[in-house]
Amino acid sequence: MLVIKVGGAEGVDYEAVCQDLAELAKEGQPWLLVHGGSHETNEVATALGHPPEFVTSASGYTSRKTDRRTIEIFEMVYCGKRNKGLVERLQALGVNALGLSGLDGRLLEGRRKKALKIVDPETGRRRVLRDTYTGTVETVNTGLIELLCGAGYWPVVSPPGISHESEAINVDGDRAAAKIAGALAAETLVILSDVPGLLRDFPDEGSLVTHLAKADLASAREELAQGRMRIKLLGAEEALEGGVKRVVLGTSKGEHPVRAALAGKGTVIE
Amino acid sequence: MLVIKVGGAEGVDYEAVCQDLAELAKEGQPWLLVHGGSHETNEVATALGHPPEFVTSASGYTSRKTDRRTIEIFEMVYCGKRNKGLVERLQALGVNALGLSGLDGRLLEGRRKKALKIVDPETGRRRVLRDTYTGTVETVNTGLIELLCGAGYWPVVSPPGISHESEAINVDGDRAAAKIAGALAAETLVILSDVPGLLRDFPDEGSLVTHLAKADLASAREELAQGRMRIKLLGAEEALEGGVKRVVLGTSKGEHPVRAALAGKGTVIE
Repeated sequence: MLVIKVGGAEGVDYEAVCQDLAELAKEGQPWLLVHGGSHETNEVATALGHPPEFVTSASGYTSRKTDRRTIEIFEMVYCGKRNKGLVERLQALGVNALGLSGLDGRLLEGRRKKALKIVDPETGRRRVLRDTYTGTVETVNTGLIELLCGAGYWPVVSPPGISHESEAINVDGDRAAAKIAGALAAETLVILSDVPGLLRDFPDEGSLVTHLAKADLASAREELAQGRMRIKLLGAEEALEGGVKRVVLGTSKGEHPVRAALAGKGTVIE
Repeated sequence: MLVIKVGGAEGVDYEAVCQDLAELAKEGQPWLLVHGGSHETNEVATALGHPPEFVTSASGYTSRKTDRRTIEIFEMVYCGKRNKGLVERLQALGVNALGLSGLDGRLLEGRRKKALKIVDPETGRRRVLRDTYTGTVETVNTGLIELLCGAGYWPVVSPPGISHESEAINVDGDRAAAKIAGALAAETLVILSDVPGLLRDFPDEGSLVTHLAKADLASAREELAQGRMRIKLLGAEEALEGGVKRVVLGTSKGEHPVRAALAGKGTVIE
C-alpha cells in the first residue's frame, strides 16, 4: 500500500498527480490519496465574509483558527469542491475513486483540543484560545479502508476528522496522512506540495536536502524547516514511528510526480 | 430497506429528521438517507458572485441552470457543508453514518443532457440551452450500498451524479431517491420537505391530498401540483414503476417526521 498526500497550496498540480495515480492504479499498485485545500479555503472564506485567521502555537506551529463557521467553509472546499473534483477527475481517468472525509464512518477519529495555547500576534504574550474545532487524529478506521479497497474502490480522503464527542475537527492533512500510512502499514508515504522538498535555504531550490535520517528529523525541524514544512517533517516523523519505512517529500509539479518521488526525487526520509 | 429523501428548501427541519432516523436505526430499521441543499446553494452562489439562475423546460419543469462553476458551488454545499453536517449530527446521535455523492464509486450514474430545450424567460420562445451539467440517474451502484450497509454503515447520499463520460451532473434529488429506492427494492420511499404533502390549493395546508392512486399520478401532476411538487410526483411515479410499494410525501417538521410519514401522515401514494 502506498499513501500519497497532495497539499492544498497555490500552484499544486492536481492534474499531474491524478494522471500519475491513474497509471499506477492500472499497473496494480494500490494507493490511498489524502488531499488538502488550504489555499482555496482562504479564498472562499474571504469571499463569504469570514476571512481566514491563523494562530501560532506556543511550540511554534502555525494553524488555521477554526471556529464553527470555519469548519463549515472548510468542509465546503475540502469535502465538496476539492474532494469531488478529484474523484471526478480520477473516474474520468478510469479509476473507481471514492471520496471520504474523516467524519465518514469515523475514518479519522481523535481528540479535540478545546483550548489552544497560542502566542498573541499583537502582544507576543501567550494566551489560551477557546471554542476552536481543531484536533489530532488518534485512530484510523482501517476496516473501512480495507472494505473499500478490497471491493475495488480507490479512497480519496480529506480532513476534517471527528472528535471522540463526534464534532468535526480540523486535523492537519500531512499528519493525518502519516497516521493513515502507519495504520495501513504502508511501505511509503509520499507528501507532495508546491516545493521540491526540504530546502536548506528556502526558497532556493538548489538547497534541497536529498536525504534525511530519522534520527536527524527533530533537529531538521527546529533548524532548517519553516512554516508548513515543519509540520510535514513532524508528519514524517510520526509516519516512521508508526512503522512506515520511507517518507518522501516531493513536488506535485512536472510529469509523473508520484513516481518521481518514489524514485527518490525530493527529500527521502528513512 | 427504507429510503428517505429530505429536501433542501428553507425551513426543512434536519434536526427532527436526524433524531428520528437515529431512533429508527437503534430499532434495527435499515435506511438510506438522500438529501438536498438547494436553498443554501442559492445563498452561497449569490455570496460568491455567481447567483443562481433557473430555467423552465419545454415540458414545464423548473431546474437550476448548471454551468461548470455552478457544479462546483453545488458540490461545496451539497457534498461539503450539508452532507458532512448530516454525517456529523447522525454520528453524534450514535449512527455510524457515511456520506457519499453520486460521483463516489459511480453511485448514481446517468446520461448528461448536453442540450436542454427551455422556454426563454424573456421572449417566451423555445430555445436550446447548451453547456449545461445536468442529467438523469439511470443506474445505481447497489453493490456499493450493500457493501457499506452490510458492514454497519448508514449511507447519507447527495447529488451530483456522474455521467457516462465521468462528468459531475446535477441530478434531481427526489428522482435520484426514487431510483435508489427502486434499485434497492425498498418497501417505502419517504420524501420530506417544508410542506405537509400534495396540496390541492397551495399553500392551504387544509387542502392536503391524503391518498393518491398510482393511476392518478399523471393527472395530479398536471392539474394539482406546482413548482417542486411536480418533480416530487414524477419521482413518486418513477419509484412505483421501479417496484417501490409506497411513496409518502410528508413534512420534515414536528416530532418524528419519518415515523409520522410511515404511519401515513402526508400524501400516501400507492
